[in-house]
Amino acid sequence: LASPAIDAGRVIADLRELQRRTGDADGAQRLCWGAQWRVAREYLQELLDEIGLEATRDAAGNLWAFLEGEREPALAVGSHIDSVPNGGWLDGAYGVMAGLGLLRAWARSGRRSPRTLALVDFADEEGARFGRSLFGSSAVAGTLDVQEVQALTDAGGRSIVQVLAENGVELARVGEAAAGLEHIGAYLELHIEQGPVLAREGLQAAAVTGCAGVERLRFGFIGQAAHAGTTPMNVRHDAGLAAATAALEVERIPTAHGGVATTGELELQPGIATAVAGEAWLSVDLRHPDPAALELMLSGARRSCAEAATSRECRLEEIAIWRIEPIAFDPQLVELAAGAIANTTGTEKRITSGALHDAAELARVLPATMIFSPSIAGISHARAENTEDADLAVAIAAFGALASAVMMTE
Amino acid sequence: LASPAIDAGRVIADLRELQRRTGDADGAQRLCWGAQWRVAREYLQELLDEIGLEATRDAAGNLWAFLEGEREPALAVGSHIDSVPNGGWLDGAYGVMAGLGLLRAWARSGRRSPRTLALVDFADEEGARFGRSLFGSSAVAGTLDVQEVQALTDAGGRSIVQVLAENGVELARVGEAAAGLEHIGAYLELHIEQGPVLAREGLQAAAVTGCAGVERLRFGFIGQAAHAGTTPMNVRHDAGLAAATAALEVERIPTAHGGVATTGELELQPGIATAVAGEAWLSVDLRHPDPAALELMLSGARRSCAEAATSRECRLEEIAIWRIEPIAFDPQLVELAAGAIANTTGTEKRITSGALHDAAELARVLPATMIFSPSIAGISHARAENTEDADLAVAIAAFGALASAVMMTE
Repeated sequence: LASPAIDAGRVIADLRELQRRTGDADGAQRLCWGAQWRVAREYLQELLDEIGLEATRDAAGNLWAFLEGEREPALAVGSHIDSVPNGGWLDGAYGVMAGLGLLRAWARSGRRSPRTLALVDFADEEGARFGRSLFGSSAVAGTLDVQEVQALTDAGGRSIVQVLAENGVELARVGEAAAGLEHIGAYLELHIEQGPVLAREGLQAAAVTGCAGVERLRFGFIGQAAHAGTTPMNVRHDAGLAAATAALEVERIPTAHGGVATTGELELQPGIATAVAGEAWLSVDLRHPDPAALELMLSGARRSCAEAATSRECRLEEIAIWRIEPIAFDPQLVELAAGAIANTTGTEKRITSGALHDAAELARVLPATMIFSPSIAGISHARAENTEDADLAVAIAAFGALASAVMMTE
Repeated sequence: LASPAIDAGRVIADLRELQRRTGDADGAQRLCWGAQWRVAREYLQELLDEIGLEATRDAAGNLWAFLEGEREPALAVGSHIDSVPNGGWLDGAYGVMAGLGLLRAWARSGRRSPRTLALVDFADEEGARFGRSLFGSSAVAGTLDVQEVQALTDAGGRSIVQVLAENGVELARVGEAAAGLEHIGAYLELHIEQGPVLAREGLQAAAVTGCAGVERLRFGFIGQAAHAGTTPMNVRHDAGLAAATAALEVERIPTAHGGVATTGELELQPGIATAVAGEAWLSVDLRHPDPAALELMLSGARRSCAEAATSRECRLEEIAIWRIEPIAFDPQLVELAAGAIANTTGTEKRITSGALHDAAELARVLPATMIFSPSIAGISHARAENTEDADLAVAIAAFGALASAVMMTE
């Protein structure tokens, strides 16, 4: 007996209604722990009410809804309903509404799904308010260190402890969310690519093989500030030009090793037209799906910065910002995803995600994978974020087929 | 009969007392139009009282004091007593106190100087509060455009019109200061170099041949902001790297043309570690004493920026910030200055100033020149600004000899 199909038109309509209720002319405004995020969750509960399901919240503020099937543990599907400020209508919400569409299809089919299905909406994937991404999913995966986040404040100076408490979450106890894992056997997530690859290749969907690891640092070049008019060229120690040289060398690292390398932040001191820069602070963000290659990228970046500093007799400082190791998705689930996409779209495409997702945290503790839909012009985290309805519908169908295949496995 | 010598010890003592009265632990605080600047001027009046001279103020707030000599028009000597915030004890004040020392020497000699001597303290040379440098001297030279400055406000939002009025200066009438020129035949200024050249060459003084012209612009590189993780290297239009390339090319311009080229300001947008920069704004400050060479530098900078933009498919914008043509000092006065320095120090050195000075404005309308003293480590506009007392004394002696030579000329 075939699995009931997800009603893609309804999923897209739910997404549009969500945007109508919580967005504005500048885009999506479902900033986690805020009023519009709570409105989004109320809407989610309305949609669950429609199919007779009640949502529960775990200790980290993640929302769960279970549709009982023939076997345990459950197959979890979902993503995050929170957005960045002025964000797009699809980022996160797409996977939540598609997952809800899967539960709705089974609930209305009059049959029990082969496995219990769990819809999950992870809290604060974006980290837009306190700077800690993947909050809820890392709590579930057991990688959220309360000590590391308890001192965080938002731009208005309000404490994460207080803001979470207002949302019914006690920071000290978020680790208890990991207990929910015992009911879950695997995790699937549908998401937009947020990059240009699928759109440029004219593809409607791709299986995601994992999330690239990230090494993010800030290098400080300490030279000597000097008067732009009175300081001869040959006695300068221009920290800005040392950083410029380093940035151009860092850009070349992926040529040898693959991956991506970005220097998006560069601050000069004193940073005025009439002075040679005495200090320059350059961010370096390196990403690669392979741990060994990522390590080579990091040593290459350090070498480039050291050489650029030395050549201008600048001192070099290095500050770690953040790092995460590459996380590969479950090979069997990736194969099933690639097969479902091939069956639905006629093309097989695998892609590594350069952005982090809740699925990366879940993949630490469960078999997990994702399906990506194309992002028009690669734009995301902006009002202009969009995907053709037809492409969304195809990927939703592939996601449904993948869920069926996973439920049938074992 | 020999001219009376300037008492260099007294000049240095006056400078120390000025710093004691108006400076603090962070350096000189004689910000023009402020309380400490008025204290500095009161001290100047005390010193003039000592030799029986009364100061007058012209329509631009410049302070003048005349010591009648045997002939008119007067030889003017001076500089500016205002400083940048947290400035040095010598910048500007040095030339004012040395000029006063010259008038004191003649006043106490019991003889009349061969020419009338005029001490001038120009108002707001630094432009530190409203961003318009050479305020008082440009009013005298007739190059201060009231229309261009009347909308200026300080960092606290206060209008230049109001702040000047509080200091007895009516902005609309500052042009009347030019009338004072009819009494002046030439202008001499003693100043610190504010750069490292003399100190590195072990020289005690130099004759200044003129002030370099300046072309100051801001170039905007408009690329495409993109996600650092999801955007492959080969589809990026990284505006930050376009600006980095341009900055490194601009640095090479003086190799071919001489002069100095500085890119001290670089702003990236969005300017975060996780995004490819979509915009970059780079300042370019070019200086050269020769107009034709400066023009070549400017076209070279434009070409470098255009090529860097094109190579990354960025759009280029150009905004003019400020420009001033090179100003050569009077060749005869420069020769006299070089000769006075050679007689005093045993070495002859000519230097072009890369910084602007009041003498540059005066040189537009009068024969003028300057003498520079070395700046230890080239440091200026900072508390650490300093020159050895012995070097100050030698340059003061050379300045006195120059003034005598000029008074004897004609």
